[in-house]
Amino acid sequence: MVNITNKVSAKLVNYDATDFGVVEAMFASTNTEVEGMSEQQIAGRINYLMRERHGTPFEHNLFTFQIVAPIFVARQWMRHRVGWSYSELSGRYADMDLGIYMPDDPETWFYHGKPGKETVTSPLPLVMLSAKAAYLASIQHAWATYRSLLDMGVHREIARMVLPVGVMTTFQASCNARSLMHFLSLRHNSPDNAVPTFPQKEIDSLAQQLEHHFRQVMPHTWQAFVDNGRVAP
Amino acid sequence: MVNITNKVSAKLVNYDATDFGVVEAMFASTNTEVEGMSEQQIAGRINYLMRERHGTPFEHNLFTFQIVAPIFVARQWMRHRVGWSYSELSGRYADMDLGIYMPDDPETWFYHGKPGKETVTSPLPLVMLSAKAAYLASIQHAWATYRSLLDMGVHREIARMVLPVGVMTTFQASCNARSLMHFLSLRHNSPDNAVPTFPQKEIDSLAQQLEHHFRQVMPHTWQAFVDNGRVAP
Amino acid sequence: MVNITNKVSAKLVNYDATDFGVVEAMFASTNTEVEGMSEQQIAGRINYLMRERHGTPFEHNLFTFQIVAPIFVARQWMRHRVGWSYSELSGRYADMDLGIYMPDDPETWFYHGKPGKETVTSPLPLVMLSAKAAYLASIQHAWATYRSLLDMGVHREIARMVLPVGVMTTFQASCNARSLMHFLSLRHNSPDNAVPTFPQKEIDSLAQQLEHHFRQVMPHTWQAFVDNGRVAP
Amino acid sequence: MVNITNKVSAKLVNYDATDFGVVEAMFASTNTEVEGMSEQQIAGRINYLMRERHGTPFEHNLFTFQIVAPIFVARQWMRHRVGWSYSELSGRYADMDLGIYMPDDPETWFYHGKPGKETVTSPLPLVMLSAKAAYLASIQHAWATYRSLLDMGVHREIARMVLPVGVMTTFQASCNARSLMHFLSLRHNSPDNAVPTFPQKEIDSLAQQLEHHFRQVMPHTWQAFVDNGRVAP
Repeated sequence: MVNITNKVSAKLVNYDATDFGVVEAMFASTNTEVEGMSEQQIAGRINYLMRERHGTPFEHNLFTFQIVAPIFVARQWMRHRVGWSYSELSGRYADMDLGIYMPDDPETWFYHGKPGKETVTSPLPLVMLSAKAAYLASIQHAWATYRSLLDMGVHREIARMVLPVGVMTTFQASCNARSLMHFLSLRHNSPDNAVPTFPQKEIDSLAQQLEHHFRQVMPHTWQAFVDNGRVAP
Repeated sequence: MVNITNKVSAKLVNYDATDFGVVEAMFASTNTEVEGMSEQQIAGRINYLMRERHGTPFEHNLFTFQIVAPIFVARQWMRHRVGWSYSELSGRYADMDLGIYMPDDPETWFYHGKPGKETVTSPLPLVMLSAKAAYLASIQHAWATYRSLLDMGVHREIARMVLPVGVMTTFQASCNARSLMHFLSLRHNSPDNAVPTFPQKEIDSLAQQLEHHFRQVMPHTWQAFVDNGRVAP
Repeated sequence: MVNITNKVSAKLVNYDATDFGVVEAMFASTNTEVEGMSEQQIAGRINYLMRERHGTPFEHNLFTFQIVAPIFVARQWMRHRVGWSYSELSGRYADMDLGIYMPDDPETWFYHGKPGKETVTSPLPLVMLSAKAAYLASIQHAWATYRSLLDMGVHREIARMVLPVGVMTTFQASCNARSLMHFLSLRHNSPDNAVPTFPQKEIDSLAQQLEHHFRQVMPHTWQAFVDNGRVAP
Repeated sequence: MVNITNKVSAKLVNYDATDFGVVEAMFASTNTEVEGMSEQQIAGRINYLMRERHGTPFEHNLFTFQIVAPIFVARQWMRHRVGWSYSELSGRYADMDLGIYMPDDPETWFYHGKPGKETVTSPLPLVMLSAKAAYLASIQHAWATYRSLLDMGVHREIARMVLPVGVMTTFQASCNARSLMHFLSLRHNSPDNAVPTFPQKEIDSLAQQLEHHFRQVMPHTWQAFVDNGRVAP
């Protein structure tokens, strides 16, 4: 039986990044001594860089995440081309066996309008049940067909064509603090955003997980990012 | 009923590129007069650039393609980050109504081993029929579920999660001659390739369509590309 | 004698870009018919994209400029890595014979403080004359040495090491409307800028020349750029 | 007095990179267990990736170098746009006080022909002496003028225009193993290169320093790079 999941996850598997490194890179341009700066001075410098949009000093570092998410989320993510590297599970080389995504309770599925301007509607309970049942039946059928085609000897790269875009995949994603902030500004709809954004719920949830790690690793950079409208420098 | 298709297509919708432009950019570095060069001289210069891997002069131009292909192909394509721009049909904003992909005759589906080292096996006719029937039933079920969820009032961005990765999408892809050659070197398995590559059949077919257009627009650049092992400069 | 110049220039040598193309790329995501849109509708759509920071539709086009400027300007320019291609005159392969830059009247040379926060000071006329004379003598000496080293048979790549960073170079620079707007937002200090920027005068002058061409070629895109604080989408 | 130097240097100031990390990223695509692999197995996998030009697994890591070199070298370096980040000393914000470059003994300055096809000529000792003296006089004059303009109160961003392109600068450069290998393939003229390259001596020397560090940090990746013709995957 297929594993049905409503979870997406982002694990920080490696990082090499500090607030102090940003200041060091910044002072490369003025040849100034940076040893012995106070936390407050570091925070001040970083805030200056963020406000004036000097992005380069935020690039000399590394974050690597392991993401588990449905394919439609991986597609949204990989539109980020600059400053990101990806290594993903391939349906040509491996069985897709991480299950299939089904979003939370169907009552939340019913809304109308464009992303960012939705009106939630409240359908009859019977409609909700029907929607959920139809969804489940369809992905179970797809899964059974996938397994069955593999059993018949059909090549993985063909059998996987029947899998839904909700099928779970996993990928390693590396970036630097600048490209990370750019991602966060577009993929998390925070009230602090100076520019509005309307990400789908799943990738927003992942962005929040990334932001949690980012905040732990580079607290001053994160603070300056938030204080300046969450626009990447 | 869902439209079942086995076609992928790449249409050249716009371009602004010439062989002569490559030579003009090349001579920017030496301040040499380029007017009045013969075709043979142009070809010679381009071959020199290709052989010595001077890539920049191939970047000052533009190709825009409209691609129609299944989502799993769009995913392979958009791994190309450098020198490519994409605008794609979104399942959040529009109905996915371009049909679903089913590859050619099932007898070709049965082979074993890693891409590039497959052994074609010849299954019993009954197995072939079963595989095809299972595939068809699965994508028809998915399609019916998608339409039905939309009819119930489920938002597009959720309903589309049941669609198979074989569902057709369309996107506009722009590149320059250098990024185009890089794509061709990896996505078309030509006997002229100095470095072997094992693209899936569908993207190889699209790469060949792109290459046809490339050859028409920049014949000397294409010839030099082929003559030098189909490695992008 | 060396040619002394105070001019920098940007010539639009090729382009393939329209406002309508932006809308076409935008509607790739919704599969909507775009024929027969009014100018006002086009302007409205472009303004929406700019405001919401959807940058991709602005990438499917091409601008190529020929720049003539001192080396220190070329260095500032080529820090723009994303969406730009460059082919430059090389001091290893060609004589540097475009002259040497000297900025306008020396009374403007005397100010203090960081870029963006300068106080202009008014030195004695004698000091101004001395500064100008010292500048001129130095670049003439450098030029004479360069020519003399070449005459002795020293290789160009070594002889050019004595040339000042004010020596003129020329390069071909290609970009798309998105990367062009990013450049304009950082390199032209306009009162319409939502984010302040303090480019050196020479590159600001070039940015204004680029912006003049941009405005001619894509008037609605330019207008939306200005109306939205001159921040690239 | 100006400090005259004939040294360029690249110091590895930070890194987060291992051979094993490449294999981990590689197996992201097949979901295979990687714990407990032998050194030989790691080397074998990496060689496979290099040979087949699968570059992405080499991107999930970080190298940061501090470079001290003349401006003409910084210019060559920063043409590498993809996968590199730079933070450089700015002549607008800081005094340029790292001295001026003069290449080794003048007898090596006299050769003819294009890079890669030079004929060394042996000039009269008197010519060599003259060349060296002229070079020295010119850079000393430029330096004195720079200091003198600063003393008069001319702004740094203008005074520095008289400094030669041989003036020393310093910058922090970060990259990943893939972009590093691309740099090495073009900037070090090794007999192992499958594709010939003709870098200027100074940047070749720096590339060799980078390669030394690379070899220490990722010995199997370095070995595979060399064994496969020093072409970046």
